[in-house]
Amino acid sequence: MPEMRRNPITGEWAIIATERAKRPYNHTFDEDVFISGNAHDSTCCFCYGNEHTTPPEVLTYREKPNASNMSGWTLRVVTNKFSALSPDGEFNITNDGSLKSFTYARGNADVVIESPHHTLNTALFPLPQIKLVLKAYRERYIALAKDPLIQYIAIFKNNGIEAGATLSHPHSQIIATPVVPPVIEYEIAGAKKYFKDNNRCVYCDMIEDELKDGSRVIYENEEFLSFAPYASKSPFETWVMPKFHSSCYEDLTNSQLKSLAQVWKITLYKIYKGLDNPPYNYYIHTSPTQQDTKKFYHWHMELIPKMTVLAGFELGTGMCINIAVPEHSAEYLREVI
Amino acid sequence: MPEMRRNPITGEWAIIATERAKRPYNHTFDEDVFISGNAHDSTCCFCYGNEHTTPPEVLTYREKPNASNMSGWTLRVVTNKFSALSPDGEFNITNDGSLKSFTYARGNADVVIESPHHTLNTALFPLPQIKLVLKAYRERYIALAKDPLIQYIAIFKNNGIEAGATLSHPHSQIIATPVVPPVIEYEIAGAKKYFKDNNRCVYCDMIEDELKDGSRVIYENEEFLSFAPYASKSPFETWVMPKFHSSCYEDLTNSQLKSLAQVWKITLYKIYKGLDNPPYNYYIHTSPTQQDTKKFYHWHMELIPKMTVLAGFELGTGMCINIAVPEHSAEYLREVI
Repeated sequence: MPEMRRNPITGEWAIIATERAKRPYNHTFDEDVFISGNAHDSTCCFCYGNEHTTPPEVLTYREKPNASNMSGWTLRVVTNKFSALSPDGEFNITNDGSLKSFTYARGNADVVIESPHHTLNTALFPLPQIKLVLKAYRERYIALAKDPLIQYIAIFKNNGIEAGATLSHPHSQIIATPVVPPVIEYEIAGAKKYFKDNNRCVYCDMIEDELKDGSRVIYENEEFLSFAPYASKSPFETWVMPKFHSSCYEDLTNSQLKSLAQVWKITLYKIYKGLDNPPYNYYIHTSPTQQDTKKFYHWHMELIPKMTVLAGFELGTGMCINIAVPEHSAEYLREVI
Repeated sequence: MPEMRRNPITGEWAIIATERAKRPYNHTFDEDVFISGNAHDSTCCFCYGNEHTTPPEVLTYREKPNASNMSGWTLRVVTNKFSALSPDGEFNITNDGSLKSFTYARGNADVVIESPHHTLNTALFPLPQIKLVLKAYRERYIALAKDPLIQYIAIFKNNGIEAGATLSHPHSQIIATPVVPPVIEYEIAGAKKYFKDNNRCVYCDMIEDELKDGSRVIYENEEFLSFAPYASKSPFETWVMPKFHSSCYEDLTNSQLKSLAQVWKITLYKIYKGLDNPPYNYYIHTSPTQQDTKKFYHWHMELIPKMTVLAGFELGTGMCINIAVPEHSAEYLREVI
């Protein structure tokens, strides 16, 4: 049974989950994609006709009504068969008197199968399909947040083998955890302090600053901004943020979702075209489910192309050496059409 | 000129250094190593005869006296030609009134050329050579720590292309930074709190706990312990710690260095043999240079074999999913002879 173990020095939790090692591996090589552009792979568990090979769906979008777990869907969310966390059982932080605190790895893991098309890169999805992906994130977030034992819901995507994807069929993941992860804790602490000192949201000030300066802006519409952060940790790091203040991704209205989809599609396309379909990771940073961060926190999306290896310096210190100047990265992406 | 930029939310510093992109790439493939076992590569800047292609040496060990920057050395430390930080100039954290704090990237970067032998894996070094490497770390640490603008000295090694090494000739690196890196800050904060609550060093308690339990011990001698930490973030993560309390690596005596070299060599060899020469990173965590952490901090070495990719979940949350149980990893390595 997977368990979570607490580092007695820093308080960080590690998830020990041997089930994950049994994940299937099905990666259509890029060359094949370019040659065949195959929409269907009969051996892929995410393709039409193989719905029975995944756990039952927890959310489906269909253009025409059809039975559950049958072909014909446009987007499908299923429980991850090789989940690191499980929705069953209790959550008890156990301490046997020594330094060994642990708990049963309570939580949830979803796979968002973003399209029936086996090889279509997310950056090339039609706009309504991008919107559907962002809408599925919101719906699943709202459903998962109802569990009172959940503290944080991580939404993320690994694109490409080098970025950790084991299946090439376009998909993203949602993992609900019973603790607030450290990266979120540090952002919350920083934003809270800034609000206390300035009575303003640090992210709102950042947006104002970026719009005034302009040199790191990649794209914007009325409601969302895509930009290279000033202290980017790696080349072509890109953030997308609502220009309006909001701490919770799940509070997006339908009209805001549409607006986000437009900025997000253009951002993904610029990365795809400008950097020649690089491997990348993206994730949403949003408020923990059980904390009131409304005044000072501001949800956003971060996309990190996998262009360098995190090596001994980065792992040992947490500091990154970025070999690209953010202003140059932004200028380059701004010009990709 | 390289600069450091501060993330206005979390306070983390990113080093923007485009010079690093110009690093040479010379990687003798493993296959070649096994076939030729070549001790010398005339195109390698770290091999005998090419001393003039590196910046001048800052430390050299020789069996017989010889002129500086000439062949005949057994270990050589030079300034990194493609350094992310520079010892020249001032350190001033500049804030133009906006959120954009930055500073000139003041610091130092050394390359420790661990052996004249071009292809000998560090794990196969004779014991005295391992001791020489650990001794060079101590000597350079002491020299670099004299600069009052330096706050932390990171000592680390990247082994193998996948772990970020661009040159295959055995080498490690020392980077001195003008700030205390976040990973160290979190360890210091946790250890300080534990000391306040328990009046004991958390690392000393951890060692006592591990020795009593035994299931995560990999190897030990009288003064040092090699073990898989309870909350390991990745498969075969291995820590080596002095059993005696000490916050500063540079305080190692010659006799302790010899004892450490023995445990370190056996640890490296077990990883090399048991995991078939995997790519890995190791780094030393030791006290910041300008802080008195004597009572509560405890230096140690961490080695992370590169067996999985840090993907969207890990990057976005800072939490890791470990697909191996630390007790199993330790048992496996314990049995490698």
